[in-house]
Amino acid sequence: MASVIDRAPLQIAISSAGNSPVLARKLRTLLETLVPSAYGRLAALAGRFRDASKRRYPDPEARRRFWEEVMDGPVAEMVLSGRERDAIDALQGKLDSGTDNKPPAGYVYLVGGGPGNPELLTLRALRVMQSASVVLYDHLVAPAIVDLVRRDAERIYVGKQASNHALPQQDINALMVRLAKEGKRVVRLKGGDPFIFGRGGEEIETLAANGVSFEVVPGITAACGAGAFAGIPLTHRDYAHSCVFVTGHLKDGSIDLDWDALARPMQTVVIYMGVHGLAMLGKQLIAHGLAARTPAALVEKATLPGQRVVAGTLATIADLAASENVRPPALLIVGEVVALRDKLAWYQPGRLEAAPRAENTPNPA
Amino acid sequence: MASVIDRAPLQIAISSAGNSPVLARKLRTLLETLVPSAYGRLAALAGRFRDASKRRYPDPEARRRFWEEVMDGPVAEMVLSGRERDAIDALQGKLDSGTDNKPPAGYVYLVGGGPGNPELLTLRALRVMQSASVVLYDHLVAPAIVDLVRRDAERIYVGKQASNHALPQQDINALMVRLAKEGKRVVRLKGGDPFIFGRGGEEIETLAANGVSFEVVPGITAACGAGAFAGIPLTHRDYAHSCVFVTGHLKDGSIDLDWDALARPMQTVVIYMGVHGLAMLGKQLIAHGLAARTPAALVEKATLPGQRVVAGTLATIADLAASENVRPPALLIVGEVVALRDKLAWYQPGRLEAAPRAENTPNPA
Repeated sequence: MASVIDRAPLQIAISSAGNSPVLARKLRTLLETLVPSAYGRLAALAGRFRDASKRRYPDPEARRRFWEEVMDGPVAEMVLSGRERDAIDALQGKLDSGTDNKPPAGYVYLVGGGPGNPELLTLRALRVMQSASVVLYDHLVAPAIVDLVRRDAERIYVGKQASNHALPQQDINALMVRLAKEGKRVVRLKGGDPFIFGRGGEEIETLAANGVSFEVVPGITAACGAGAFAGIPLTHRDYAHSCVFVTGHLKDGSIDLDWDALARPMQTVVIYMGVHGLAMLGKQLIAHGLAARTPAALVEKATLPGQRVVAGTLATIADLAASENVRPPALLIVGEVVALRDKLAWYQPGRLEAAPRAENTPNPA
Repeated sequence: MASVIDRAPLQIAISSAGNSPVLARKLRTLLETLVPSAYGRLAALAGRFRDASKRRYPDPEARRRFWEEVMDGPVAEMVLSGRERDAIDALQGKLDSGTDNKPPAGYVYLVGGGPGNPELLTLRALRVMQSASVVLYDHLVAPAIVDLVRRDAERIYVGKQASNHALPQQDINALMVRLAKEGKRVVRLKGGDPFIFGRGGEEIETLAANGVSFEVVPGITAACGAGAFAGIPLTHRDYAHSCVFVTGHLKDGSIDLDWDALARPMQTVVIYMGVHGLAMLGKQLIAHGLAARTPAALVEKATLPGQRVVAGTLATIADLAASENVRPPALLIVGEVVALRDKLAWYQPGRLEAAPRAENTPNPA
């Protein structure tokens, strides 16, 4: 097994049958699983158009080229993303018009990269990242996630760190439109879920207004990642019948939240980006009715090998965070469920380092 | 390409290099990506213990067997799940004690199966499902997801359809403890995210109380899946600065929710399991201050080929659902963001059927 270390990943996969039955079996099982879920509907499409393609391309070599373009192009993507009517229309159009020189239609994937642990990417997100020609990402996307983008894709860092935007939002939107209109497969990679904070909705509004096709790939939002990996159920029959997500951005030294709606019994409050406003958050929630002893936990680098959880109460969490030097991005979870962590914490990261990858790792920080 | 239809999935994968360079390249890329993210840290572990294993097993064949057990057993699982300290201790213990007949330690994975579309499973969920010896699932897990469990794993349907529980909760908990103590790798498969409704927290509390090791794998919660696939951002700078998740279970003909906290401006309310209580939900939210014209959408079978979205207002949604015969499971989304769907809807499912799988598909309904 030690030889694993010295080999490139694909070589392991290909040659492992010879010297490591264990790895070979693992990979075999993985393939058996991945292939049908992705390619079953593509096969159905091929079946549906088989006769038509034979009539259009009697020459087997020409027919092979035709199907290669289909399977590697936007038609296949449409099927895999569930836009099957579009796929049928596009394939029919392609058959009617021949494989001429029409420029390919660009496309934008708004992809949730999850909380940072690459294992928490969805299959769809990974596939889309692997077919991208350009990827736009910001500082909330973990380097380990950006690392999974197709190797020869162009990578554009579009920044956004509170007041320090590498590109203003309108420029990001305009850039996506331009790239798509050039025929690129654009991946707009976001941390967490693209529709929970992060302005994913606004970005695709611009696309829609400009006639650019898009798909939205949901991701594990930070609250779910942090809850699972910190051992904190966000809802629980005995302690929380609802959970609410807000952001804790400071604006002019204050935080504008609907405190009455947040300071409720039997509710879990998850505050994204709340590190800098912790003192204010704790004070306001107590002022609006939550007990000072309400459990509260900060989850720093949730789901990553560097994850840290600092747990206290509404009254103590700001001081604890300061003394432990908790840094953004970190998530604040407030509610009785936080106390369950004493029993339910299971994640103990940090003793092993992964073997370094051969290629360069982009550093968005 | 038409030959794809007639072949088993693994055969496609293995033989595709010969007759379909396109598929072969897609699979190659997939492998390049999946292998390092999963096996990098395992390789690091192997490196760390390489010399020790040579001293302990000078015979190469015995050493190979040792590493096979490591790579296919709980030690590898511990590494892949981030429990690296446990893994090092376990591997050291295994080296010290030899590969004797100690019964394997059982383990429970509490896994979020996501909203139903298999492409929205996380890599971790899929891997865990592929290594399970037993899986417990209920009716909220889509058949297409259950279908991805390792083929020779035992499948136990534990039910739960409102008042019709195949197994009472305490029996489910006891069953998991018993199976784990028998040394099984138990997967407890839940719809959505295991910590957002669905009582995942309670189930692992029982495990913790009984000394059973466990891991929690977060999943795409129904709200995120439905939002993405219905074109409804759950937050948006102009329309919603918070989102709140609740359940709409009817109890004695009534719904016990904190209406004041829900009926707020600039907030999206997502109601899980709300189909039967729609009329009550609409009335109460209006009575507590939301405008009758507040947009509301029901997303039925979110993310699946059978997805339907019925959109109206708080005043009309109950009647619409009745006339359209919307069935559970469906998710209700309430808030101004729902109106964005007119511009942002992109998912058009339903014209192509996937080729049927060869094996039997379990039917949990």
